[in-house]
Amino acid sequence: MEGDARRRVAFLGPEASYTHQAALDAFKNKDVTLSPQITIADVFTAVQKGTAYRGVVPFENSSNGSVVFTLDLIADLHGMHPDILVCGESYVDVKHCLLGYIVPNATPADQHNHKDKPPVEIDKKFTNPLAVPICDLSRIKKLYSHPQAWGQCKAFLSTYLKGIERQDVSSTSRAAELVAQDTSGESAALSSFVAASLFRLDVLAESINDRVGNATRFLLIRRKNSASPSSTPLPDSTYTTDGNGSDWKTLVTFTVDHANPGALASCLAACGKYGLNLTSINTRPSGIENWHYIFFVEFKGRKEDGDEIGPVNQALKDLDSVCRAWRWLGSWENRL
Amino acid sequence: MEGDARRRVAFLGPEASYTHQAALDAFKNKDVTLSPQITIADVFTAVQKGTAYRGVVPFENSSNGSVVFTLDLIADLHGMHPDILVCGESYVDVKHCLLGYIVPNATPADQHNHKDKPPVEIDKKFTNPLAVPICDLSRIKKLYSHPQAWGQCKAFLSTYLKGIERQDVSSTSRAAELVAQDTSGESAALSSFVAASLFRLDVLAESINDRVGNATRFLLIRRKNSASPSSTPLPDSTYTTDGNGSDWKTLVTFTVDHANPGALASCLAACGKYGLNLTSINTRPSGIENWHYIFFVEFKGRKEDGDEIGPVNQALKDLDSVCRAWRWLGSWENRL
Repeated sequence: MEGDARRRVAFLGPEASYTHQAALDAFKNKDVTLSPQITIADVFTAVQKGTAYRGVVPFENSSNGSVVFTLDLIADLHGMHPDILVCGESYVDVKHCLLGYIVPNATPADQHNHKDKPPVEIDKKFTNPLAVPICDLSRIKKLYSHPQAWGQCKAFLSTYLKGIERQDVSSTSRAAELVAQDTSGESAALSSFVAASLFRLDVLAESINDRVGNATRFLLIRRKNSASPSSTPLPDSTYTTDGNGSDWKTLVTFTVDHANPGALASCLAACGKYGLNLTSINTRPSGIENWHYIFFVEFKGRKEDGDEIGPVNQALKDLDSVCRAWRWLGSWENRL
Repeated sequence: MEGDARRRVAFLGPEASYTHQAALDAFKNKDVTLSPQITIADVFTAVQKGTAYRGVVPFENSSNGSVVFTLDLIADLHGMHPDILVCGESYVDVKHCLLGYIVPNATPADQHNHKDKPPVEIDKKFTNPLAVPICDLSRIKKLYSHPQAWGQCKAFLSTYLKGIERQDVSSTSRAAELVAQDTSGESAALSSFVAASLFRLDVLAESINDRVGNATRFLLIRRKNSASPSSTPLPDSTYTTDGNGSDWKTLVTFTVDHANPGALASCLAACGKYGLNLTSINTRPSGIENWHYIFFVEFKGRKEDGDEIGPVNQALKDLDSVCRAWRWLGSWENRL
């Protein structure tokens, strides 16, 4: 690693994406450069090659489940990123905001009576929006967003922005960028909170999604041998502390001998022993033979370095005797 | 169920899709009507409502992994399809074919020397196509297919159809339909074997994919109380036999108390006991609370009806004492 790379954090772009938000949160007040990448694979490659010293990638969404691209990159079936370890996690609430420009002298929202415009023909579950605009929206003539966002903000749109022209764009971030170019106040974007500060837009309404509580979990990755040398410490994420391993998580992948009945159960028993709480399991095709899998197991606990023998180290020793192959993918502090 | 519905098998369309092929295979020589549906959910609904007595849906692909839409429909978090059970499975090799019309008096392929046209600028791994055309392709001026298929047949296309105009269409089946309308022999489709017979096209080359062995597994579903009354037996799938349960599979879903460390391991141990070989595990968001999951466990064995106590019945009894909630989703004959 040379020069800038030592303080560069690669993340899945574009800027103002939810992954960007996760990266900002994880490296708050740290002297780092955040570097957007086009694909999740690009983030892994940047960290593997050392052009970035940390990476931030989406791992799972509370409604949609695992991000299989990330799982496959962690599994590394083609040996492209053999030195990647998970060193942290970050949770971001997925909250859409209405962004635009507050125009001086516009009438405040509370002087409008929206009750005389009842929403019609929308999903009955989502007739009452949870958010109210913080200013008058009557100037808005055009809305920009990613196609998915319209469906996630039905109640707000049908109550406060009914019949307004909608323009689909490639990302919620791009929507904010376009709206920033129209200072007339006639355009607005369904986008993220972080996009507001990036494109210097006003938040006209916050948390306009129909459902609340949708969140995404991100992983922080590093390269195996990229621990900060003591002479020149690198900025670590805001989260990392020297905890005692009681509230840590560990990720392990393994494959089993499918010809051996009970092999999978034995492997899971090894991980579940020693009081370790199995918190999640994922599977992906092994890439070697059809209907053979690679298993991703996450459990509470921390692998100790060197000669120390903790419960995770014991579990991994047991696992080694019953699985076909396994890899420790890192231990990090639980952020949930 | 009335009239036609008693012999109707709903499958994920369109016609000539790989799911259609799975349905044709599963109900070969049976007196059934195959009925294409627009979405996987439509197949579940047709079987739940009794407008079809069986359904065929994709479940997992050997390269791409599980079909999460099907997992979520099986999990049935919103109670829309409470009576659906899995009653069989079907494996279909994903093999693209080049379809068109063989024009009489065309020169046979073996009189052409393709060696003077080396493929350039394609993925080095896929320079040598595995298939050879069974007739001259020089008449072909336009190719139709789903965008994904071009990338899966790179070597064949760059060797035998280099520079030919390509038209993206919505499905490989639609590609065959369009080609069938041009009897000049100047159009060809990258499509499936079953599409050839459906649209009465000639197979100009078979298995033109770069990789071989890619396969998809489909599930056959039925309604809980739709067992054939003895007086009027319904046509069952070609596969089903009165096996003794030694080569059957069982699917179970369960949720665990996440506050109880070791709950997941205990549930898996219950399924893995009694000599039952755990063959696969999947997880999806529980839909109740963020970062809580519903687990899908498949193992070898068959749940016995009535008072019989087999190993699966014993495992389910154990599971009941350690999980929060569970459902038996069916037992069926292994087709692998």
